[in-house]
Order: sequence, then C-alpha cells, then structure tokens
Amino acid sequence: MTYCLSMRLQEGLIFLGDTRTNAGVDNVSTYRKVHLFQPTPDRLFVLEAAGNLATTQEVLDRIDHDLYDPGAHESLATVGHLFEAALYVGRLSREVAARHHAALAEVGADGTATFLLGGEIQGDDPDILLIYPEGNYIRASDDRPFLQIGESKYGKFTLELAVASQVNLTTATKIALTSMVSTAGANLSVGPPYDLVIYRNGTFEPFEARINADSPFLSRLEAVWAKHLHEAIVELPTIQEGDLET
Amino acid sequence: MTYCLSMRLQEGLIFLGDTRTNAGVDNVSTYRKVHLFQPTPDRLFVLEAAGNLATTQEVLDRIDHDLYDPGAHESLATVGHLFEAALYVGRLSREVAARHHAALAEVGADGTATFLLGGEIQGDDPDILLIYPEGNYIRASDDRPFLQIGESKYGKFTLELAVASQVNLTTATKIALTSMVSTAGANLSVGPPYDLVIYRNGTFEPFEARINADSPFLSRLEAVWAKHLHEAIVELPTIQEGDLET
Repeated sequence: MTYCLSMRLQEGLIFLGDTRTNAGVDNVSTYRKVHLFQPTPDRLFVLEAAGNLATTQEVLDRIDHDLYDPGAHESLATVGHLFEAALYVGRLSREVAARHHAALAEVGADGTATFLLGGEIQGDDPDILLIYPEGNYIRASDDRPFLQIGESKYGKFTLELAVASQVNLTTATKIALTSMVSTAGANLSVGPPYDLVIYRNGTFEPFEARINADSPFLSRLEAVWAKHLHEAIVELPTIQEGDLET
Repeated sequence: MTYCLSMRLQEGLIFLGDTRTNAGVDNVSTYRKVHLFQPTPDRLFVLEAAGNLATTQEVLDRIDHDLYDPGAHESLATVGHLFEAALYVGRLSREVAARHHAALAEVGADGTATFLLGGEIQGDDPDILLIYPEGNYIRASDDRPFLQIGESKYGKFTLELAVASQVNLTTATKIALTSMVSTAGANLSVGPPYDLVIYRNGTFEPFEARINADSPFLSRLEAVWAKHLHEAIVELPTIQEGDLET
C-alpha cells in the first residue's frame, strides 16, 4: 500500500508521502511517490501516486514524454487550469491501466492507480485534487481541505484536528507528519523515508525534503506525540455510576 | 459497518461496541452488538458481532435455542473451554451464512459475519478470541492483547498505546472509549450509543453499561481528548534545516 496526503491551507499547500512499495508481503521496496513538475515558471504541480506501481511509473513517463517531446500534445505545460491537469493525468492513468488490463486480470491483479494533484497555475487559486482510477476528479472541500490516498484511515484523526483549528503551514506540517507516523505505526505497508513538499502560495518555489527513518527529528516527533497521548489518556474522565444507563 | 473491540488485561476483560447498523447508506438503525451469556454460574461469555445483521441475529437465536431447548446439543452451557465455544459459534455462523448464500449472492450481498468472543470458564484463564466467517478463530496475542472487528483502522492507535503502558481496567476503559470516539468521528457507519462490558477476572459478575450519545460523560471525554491532542500538536518539534536531507 501507500499513504499520501495533501492539505490546502490559507498560506499554501502541503504534500507528504511514504515510500514503501510491496507486491503482497514480498518484494518490499522504496520508491518515491511524491513528484514535482515545474514545466514553466508560472506553474507548479505536485503529483502523489497510489496503486499499481507499474501504472504510476508509466503515467509519470508519459507526463515527462509529453513535456519534453516537441509536438502539439496536451501536457502539463499546456493545460490552462488545475482541473485540466487533473483530467489530463486521469486520461493517461486510464489509458495505461486499460492497456494492461487483460494481462493483469489473467493473474487476478489490478492495474489501476489513484493520484493526488496539487499546485498553482498563475492566475488561478492554488488547489488540491484527487484523481480517481476512472479519470474523473474531486477537489478538497472548504470544510475538509485535505485529501488522502492509500491507507487513509489510520491517520485521518490528526488531519481532522488541523481542520478544526485553522493552523498555519508550520503546524500543519507537524500534523501531516503525525498522521504519517500514526499510519506507519499501525500498518506495515506504509513506511519511511517520507517525502515532503511545502508550497507557499504565489511563490512558485516549493520546499522539498526527505525525512529518513533514522532522522533524530522523527524520533523527537514520535516521542513528543506518544508522551502527550499518554498524558491525555491519564487525564480522561473516569466513568461514574451517574454517567451510565445500566 | 460496526466497530467492536475487546481487550485482555491482567485484571480482566473489556468489551465495547457501537450500535449503528445500515444497509448501504439507508436504513440506518440501532442494534445492540455486544451480547452477554451466562448459562451457568461458572461461565460467562461476551459475544460481539460484525457483518451481516440477519446472520448475526440468526446465530444469536440459535445460541439461545441451543441453551434453552432441552436435548443433547452442543451449547454455551456444554462447551468445556473458550476455544470450543469459539468453534461452536463459528460453526453456527458458517451454517447460517451457507444456508442464505445462494439467495444473497443473487443480489450481490454477502451474508458472512465475524465475532469477538471473550469470557471465562471456571478452571481456565479468561481470554478473548476472534471468530472468522470461515468458522476458525485466533486468540489475542500477549504482545497485542486486544482484538477488533468492523471499522478497526481509525481507532487502532489508542489501543496500541494501552498495550505499551500496561494499564489497569479503569484506564483501559477510557482508552477503549477514545478508540470508539475516534472511529465514530471519522466514519459515519459507526455511532452511539455504545455498549460496554467490564469483567474482572474470577468474579463471574460483569459490569454492563450503555453510554448514550447525549451522555455528559461522553462530551467531557471528547473535550479532554481533543484538548490534549491540540496541545500535543502545538508542542511537536518544528523541522529544522539540519533535520532534513533536501
């Protein structure tokens, strides 16, 4: 599996993805799932991928090919809006999956992929979108301005907290990391290193970083998080007889 | 869906289940999923059910029928050990699901159910077991002495904490409730009232309670939990340049 998330905040966008890949319980490996595209100075895209690794790699290769091969193709350099970029990636994803469908179906495998696409095209508001294997997309809502793909359940609660408290980019990055750490702690198919992109709206200059498994920062974060959760549990109210319908 | 959990502690056992049932997004209703059986004074069983509601009801009816109808059947009164009780419930579950399989398959429905069974039979150690739709079972391990059925991912992190810190029955009950509340907050198919059973080993006297949606205790618990998580997020370390491989 995979866990990738993106958050849309007042100040900017955050993207975080794990790197673990596996085929069943075997062939566990490390692949980047967070990809940055900046085809022209007035546009920036971050694409996060979950699903069949061969499909996501072929989609990425086709995106690159369309960008760097001269011609009149649609590409991330030509789309006018983020939603058009989402439809473009969705079309590639559907085409790749469809081409391999029959062969994969024979061995009971699924060649589909799901993507998160975010970024900014000058003149439009920055945004994040989720692209379904069917090629259509949804935006993050204003009420819940985050999106997740892959193993999204374990780490959802921290993202909900972020939403509740209108946090800034720095705090949101911490929240994204606790969401990732909670997920990796609960599910073997998600693991470090983690790839992070922080984008401040209007700058067209992303901050990109990788956080490794042995990072002292990650250890500090995990320790502080666990300590507070333990304290929270100790301070939770105890059930009294009057609280219950027995 | 459903969320039921059980924990096996030094002092005793905890069972907690939600009550929401649904068919798709419709026909949302409230049914008890935590059931207590005490057929003789020297044995106590708690059975939690997830899956097809018709199947779980028929299984419960057959358990009752076997208990109260005179005859030489196997029943919860005759089994010698908890693992035999698990195999007995597993057999009923498989029989009921098999009988309705063809009719349900015609409409694309699944009639299977999964159970958590816990309790004590005098002379044996108290224990908790998970019964698969196939009728076989697993025990909780010593390293991770809890079991979950239904929507188990959202609320797993708090149970992991409990394990890490060797808590007592009172604290474990709080942890079980935060696990339930976190799950219900993230997933519409899980909701109050919540049914709780606390069992102190060797007593054969369970404490049973229902916690309603409008319970002031539940509001206090949710408020304290949210406050601490917010504080935790604020105190998490901020990423410094040196922490990252950029």
